[in-house]
Amino acid sequence: MLTGALPPPITWVGGVDGHLALLDQTRLPHARDILVLRSLAGAVDAIRRLAVRGAPAIGVAAAYAVILGVRERAPQSPAAFAAALTEVARALIAARPTAINLAWAVHAVTARGREEPSLEALLAAARALQADDAERCLAMGDAGRDLVEDGCTVLTHCNAGRLATAGDGTALAVLYAAQRAGRRFRVLADETRPLLQGARLTALELAAAGIPVEVVVDGAAAGLIRAGQVQLILTGADRIAANGDVANKVGTYGLALAAHASQVPMWVVAPTSTFDLSIASGDDIPIEHRDPQEVLSFAGIATSVAGVGARNPAFDITPHTLLRGLVTDRGRVSPVTQETIKAVVDQSRS
Amino acid sequence: MLTGALPPPITWVGGVDGHLALLDQTRLPHARDILVLRSLAGAVDAIRRLAVRGAPAIGVAAAYAVILGVRERAPQSPAAFAAALTEVARALIAARPTAINLAWAVHAVTARGREEPSLEALLAAARALQADDAERCLAMGDAGRDLVEDGCTVLTHCNAGRLATAGDGTALAVLYAAQRAGRRFRVLADETRPLLQGARLTALELAAAGIPVEVVVDGAAAGLIRAGQVQLILTGADRIAANGDVANKVGTYGLALAAHASQVPMWVVAPTSTFDLSIASGDDIPIEHRDPQEVLSFAGIATSVAGVGARNPAFDITPHTLLRGLVTDRGRVSPVTQETIKAVVDQSRS
Repeated sequence: MLTGALPPPITWVGGVDGHLALLDQTRLPHARDILVLRSLAGAVDAIRRLAVRGAPAIGVAAAYAVILGVRERAPQSPAAFAAALTEVARALIAARPTAINLAWAVHAVTARGREEPSLEALLAAARALQADDAERCLAMGDAGRDLVEDGCTVLTHCNAGRLATAGDGTALAVLYAAQRAGRRFRVLADETRPLLQGARLTALELAAAGIPVEVVVDGAAAGLIRAGQVQLILTGADRIAANGDVANKVGTYGLALAAHASQVPMWVVAPTSTFDLSIASGDDIPIEHRDPQEVLSFAGIATSVAGVGARNPAFDITPHTLLRGLVTDRGRVSPVTQETIKAVVDQSRS
Repeated sequence: MLTGALPPPITWVGGVDGHLALLDQTRLPHARDILVLRSLAGAVDAIRRLAVRGAPAIGVAAAYAVILGVRERAPQSPAAFAAALTEVARALIAARPTAINLAWAVHAVTARGREEPSLEALLAAARALQADDAERCLAMGDAGRDLVEDGCTVLTHCNAGRLATAGDGTALAVLYAAQRAGRRFRVLADETRPLLQGARLTALELAAAGIPVEVVVDGAAAGLIRAGQVQLILTGADRIAANGDVANKVGTYGLALAAHASQVPMWVVAPTSTFDLSIASGDDIPIEHRDPQEVLSFAGIATSVAGVGARNPAFDITPHTLLRGLVTDRGRVSPVTQETIKAVVDQSRS
């Protein structure tokens, strides 16, 4: 189970009459089921229930899902095509509120469709976006590689790797680049309750790549950092505000507090498509609250007694002041300020 | 399942030829199995695998286990009795390294047995220790009650309640006292991976007591604190060093960082038997590392892939500087300094 490449998380199969094939990440690591999606509703459901997850991967999947949605509406005029685009975009963007890459990717594909109202144009735009994401992953890896010193232990949270993007990942792209550069290092993967993306996905993909990895419970990370067992912390991001505050998987803020208290560098790794300069600070980023049953059960087994409730915020906000820096596809940003962020984002959009 | 009192966690049944009955906490909340223990080996195993847990409860269980160990050795002389006490004490104290109450309770009972080498004396000492623990719980409740303001939300970690002591608990004794005083409040219970004492035990006992409780994943606590959803944090302790540093269930340190960053008061609630003035600071407290399989599985289901390891420290160290204060059976200690701690511990031992 540890050897051999994982299937790609997102594949468009065929031409404009084809389908979207997603590796069902809710079933990993124990099964490698592929979801064959031919409808917008199916794609929205897959995004909502995290069959595909990771901010960049959600964006790529949603880009292809635009084709499914417009196709099933069978618009017979440019005006109908444009109306279908609007309707489909709204449904996709509403699927999950926090990761900005979803809206960014949907807007990119629908903009192309408004210029050239054809399924062929949408498919070309989605394919370009997927290829672009893979390239950005490599660029982030190169930009962050030298943060990984020989012999160090790197801690990461959730999954920001090959299963979260169309390429090598964000945080984990840095590790793959360091591995290619011959660095030796170990990884501690926070298991990342409630859905265990660290234990299920990060451990799986790092082990498959031959990188030594150990799982820790989320509550153990701060103490291990304080005890000197971690030299570098790398996470991804779901949205980064104009001031550098980061929304990422719940638990990230606690890591940043521990990193800052022990002066262990923490870097957030994200493509420039994750930046949302329309939002001044992290406190304005919408936080998705998910079904309490994710907290109250595990693989169908209740963890508590009937009648007890749960709060289940899927993300938290890390103030930029706790971060050593950001790694982007346009290079590193450190210190994290409104000005340094604006410079790198303007560069990427020019 | 939510109504009705829980069985007491520890009962000695009968006289010196009786047995130790433990509520098997590994099976809660879904079953209420009672372990009937007649041997030292059985008691040590129950302590090791957390059938009984919580620093004060481990102490009480170990106090009774001294009787089992000495009885099965059937010493025929005062010298043999003393030798049996030494051997039994060593086995019990080695069962778990971090909670100091275990050693404290075993020393208390064996000291009595050295003065009067009889099983009757040991049983009387253990019964006295159990009654004393229940009284200390009430005293902690009284001392901490006024920290719980009407309408507030209290966050707690692991289980420091009726299932962790011979009485009302430590942190949760404060909540029960506040409830008796007519305060209305809500509780957020960290689920406390890997063994889910928060979801399984704290939620169970608070719900049974009619206190509104919601479970959160451990990684969510810091963000909820930062978001203003928590007004007070209460935890127990497994050992408190002379300077006030606290060893407690892994994850406590991260809570303290978040509490301190958002200026939310965090109090650690523990009887004076939890203080170890022989240890200067938290960094000298031994931390138990438990079986990686606790992290890598859940109710028998693997959370990761075969071949992936885990690190599983059961406790972490919270520096005293992050705490608003300590609640003890001899009153509150705030600020937490070597001097304020020494004063309360000297008082309790005079």
